[in-house]
Amino acid sequence: MTLFSTNEYFDRIAKTKAAMRQKGIEVMVVCDPANMNYLTGYDGWSFYVPQAVLVIDDEEEPVWIGRMMDLNGARHTAFIKEEHMIGYPEDYIQTELRHPMNFMGDYIKEKGWGGKTIGVETDAYYYTARSHGALKHSLGRETLMDANLLVNWVRLIKSDAEIAMMKQAGKIAGNVMAAALGHLRPGIRECDAVAAVFQAQASGTPEFGGDYPSIVPMMPTGEKTSAPHLTWTDAPYQSNQAVNLELAGCRNRYHCPIARTAFIGAAPPEKLQRLADITVEGLNLTLDAIRPGMTGEGVEKVWREHIAKHGFEKKSRIGYSMGLNYPPDWGEHTASLRPGDKTVLSPNMTFHMILGMWMDDFGFECSESFRVTDTAAETFADCERKLFLLE
Amino acid sequence: MTLFSTNEYFDRIAKTKAAMRQKGIEVMVVCDPANMNYLTGYDGWSFYVPQAVLVIDDEEEPVWIGRMMDLNGARHTAFIKEEHMIGYPEDYIQTELRHPMNFMGDYIKEKGWGGKTIGVETDAYYYTARSHGALKHSLGRETLMDANLLVNWVRLIKSDAEIAMMKQAGKIAGNVMAAALGHLRPGIRECDAVAAVFQAQASGTPEFGGDYPSIVPMMPTGEKTSAPHLTWTDAPYQSNQAVNLELAGCRNRYHCPIARTAFIGAAPPEKLQRLADITVEGLNLTLDAIRPGMTGEGVEKVWREHIAKHGFEKKSRIGYSMGLNYPPDWGEHTASLRPGDKTVLSPNMTFHMILGMWMDDFGFECSESFRVTDTAAETFADCERKLFLLE
Repeated sequence: MTLFSTNEYFDRIAKTKAAMRQKGIEVMVVCDPANMNYLTGYDGWSFYVPQAVLVIDDEEEPVWIGRMMDLNGARHTAFIKEEHMIGYPEDYIQTELRHPMNFMGDYIKEKGWGGKTIGVETDAYYYTARSHGALKHSLGRETLMDANLLVNWVRLIKSDAEIAMMKQAGKIAGNVMAAALGHLRPGIRECDAVAAVFQAQASGTPEFGGDYPSIVPMMPTGEKTSAPHLTWTDAPYQSNQAVNLELAGCRNRYHCPIARTAFIGAAPPEKLQRLADITVEGLNLTLDAIRPGMTGEGVEKVWREHIAKHGFEKKSRIGYSMGLNYPPDWGEHTASLRPGDKTVLSPNMTFHMILGMWMDDFGFECSESFRVTDTAAETFADCERKLFLLE
Repeated sequence: MTLFSTNEYFDRIAKTKAAMRQKGIEVMVVCDPANMNYLTGYDGWSFYVPQAVLVIDDEEEPVWIGRMMDLNGARHTAFIKEEHMIGYPEDYIQTELRHPMNFMGDYIKEKGWGGKTIGVETDAYYYTARSHGALKHSLGRETLMDANLLVNWVRLIKSDAEIAMMKQAGKIAGNVMAAALGHLRPGIRECDAVAAVFQAQASGTPEFGGDYPSIVPMMPTGEKTSAPHLTWTDAPYQSNQAVNLELAGCRNRYHCPIARTAFIGAAPPEKLQRLADITVEGLNLTLDAIRPGMTGEGVEKVWREHIAKHGFEKKSRIGYSMGLNYPPDWGEHTASLRPGDKTVLSPNMTFHMILGMWMDDFGFECSESFRVTDTAAETFADCERKLFLLE
């Protein structure tokens, strides 16, 4: 049983084939698990072994190739016909003797597609140096076409059905942040607050359940709020401690990330409160400024000019396209809100705008996930924008 | 503040350098996040961008290279000196213009190590085809030495301090499985049972907190128990439904995986009960047979002969080395319990023995994580081995 209509999958495949034609690619070997899901519906925690979806120019349906034991998982989640689900034997797993990409190369040749132009996702997380080498070897090729992010760019504009999923993720995200804020009290261990976050992420709402976000809760405290990607410890929270919260709600692999900063106490350091005020003001006015037709760099400029007035600078981008994804990232690696990005914002593009201000020994972050509408930006989650003071 | 003593890190580095010498490697570019942690203590959810630890033959301490914004995270978790922590600028992030591995290659040349023999982990999850190409390009090399799994093999035998961490993970794993079994009741939604599992994983015990396991809870139900890597839905459990539970406890990135199968009802199908009885008997006698000095394939043979007597066959391996890890896998990709594996079991090797029997439309699994002692196998978690009947 697939999540979307078969028509929607065929629409995605048609767009992918159009992008392939434009680059002169006849066969795409898609290894990014989000792209595999996007094109077939396949969903399982099997991306720790090599697997792929092949899109072939003159085949209506893609071909799923994965580990034999995951064939049943494909049958339960992918829309494609039985003959297009191929399992490779167990003796390809984690051995120096052969590699699953050898199997894929052999399969492509066997099917008579060996002479076609073949594209691969050279920088997809699970497409390793050895994957690339083994595929080239079995295909007898010196080079393959670099089609990195080809499908990711197709994913940029969401369908209405995808937006509906992201709105559900937004509902979950609001609950998740509320659960976190409810547990930041002196004496409560960090790990127990994180436990409440995980709980809320999976339970979702009474109407629909949650899925695992592609990134675990990141909740650094105190001085560690200067480091954006630390997770948590089992130390108890202390009074007058700041906590950064970078969290998400997820529904059927669709994400709504959300970040806030809280201070456990009534009197935050003045420098933190000032940074918070300027950042939140910047978030508000940047979101308000968004219109379809603006570029990614145009959005960032609004923010940059705002903080420059207050003597601040942010070197990293302020947002990125996101939606359907798997660990280790919910970002799509395509459009960013940063200088130089010429992507023109169009309706149903979806971004996470995250204003993370990491100073030497403290930090503040506040974010919103939003879609571009016909006229403006519409956020997915419902959560006040401010430095939360938890007394 | 690092998790282990500086001496322990230097011991690990010494073993890594010895393995490098044996292969004629002078510089190792380590991109596997577990190996990076093992050698320096570095711990953060930053492996969604390229990063590396360099081990250089004539440098005492490794060099950490990562995204500029993660430098503070390195300062908070890694033992190495400030000059050995290098941040690359933001304009290397997710762009077609340059790649973080270009920065690493340039850095290696700048430091005068460009003429040394350089080894890379060709099949590590986050070392992509493009990573490899960019590194070779910046180093001006046609090829680099394939040092895949070099550090993983060093990790095979755990220190007593690591074993202590895995025993804590084992305590958490017992709680996690109990939480799961306590929520498998008709009418409870799968996502709510999973929420309880996540809760238990993060909370750990009153004495110490839990960390996120490298794999999310896998809890397929009913017919989907035939598919090992499906996660969960928000459907309510039903009477007379089987549920597979592949879970783990994790403590400071050290794992104790544990798998069980439960049946919601008093009268499981006869074929399921029979499969369970044979599997559990096989798990018991295989664990009991383990002695240091046996090989990986020798252990598997005990199991294989047992199930063959009952007319069963299992094509996939029955276990693998595990311990410290990051998503997407807690396995170390080194020693396996399977035909052809000649690894000689030694004290403080640690394995997950998982007897997953996936039939056409049902399945049963039961597993134990254990260490090899001076005389036998010692399991980490405390959980009855049986088909749980939940009435």
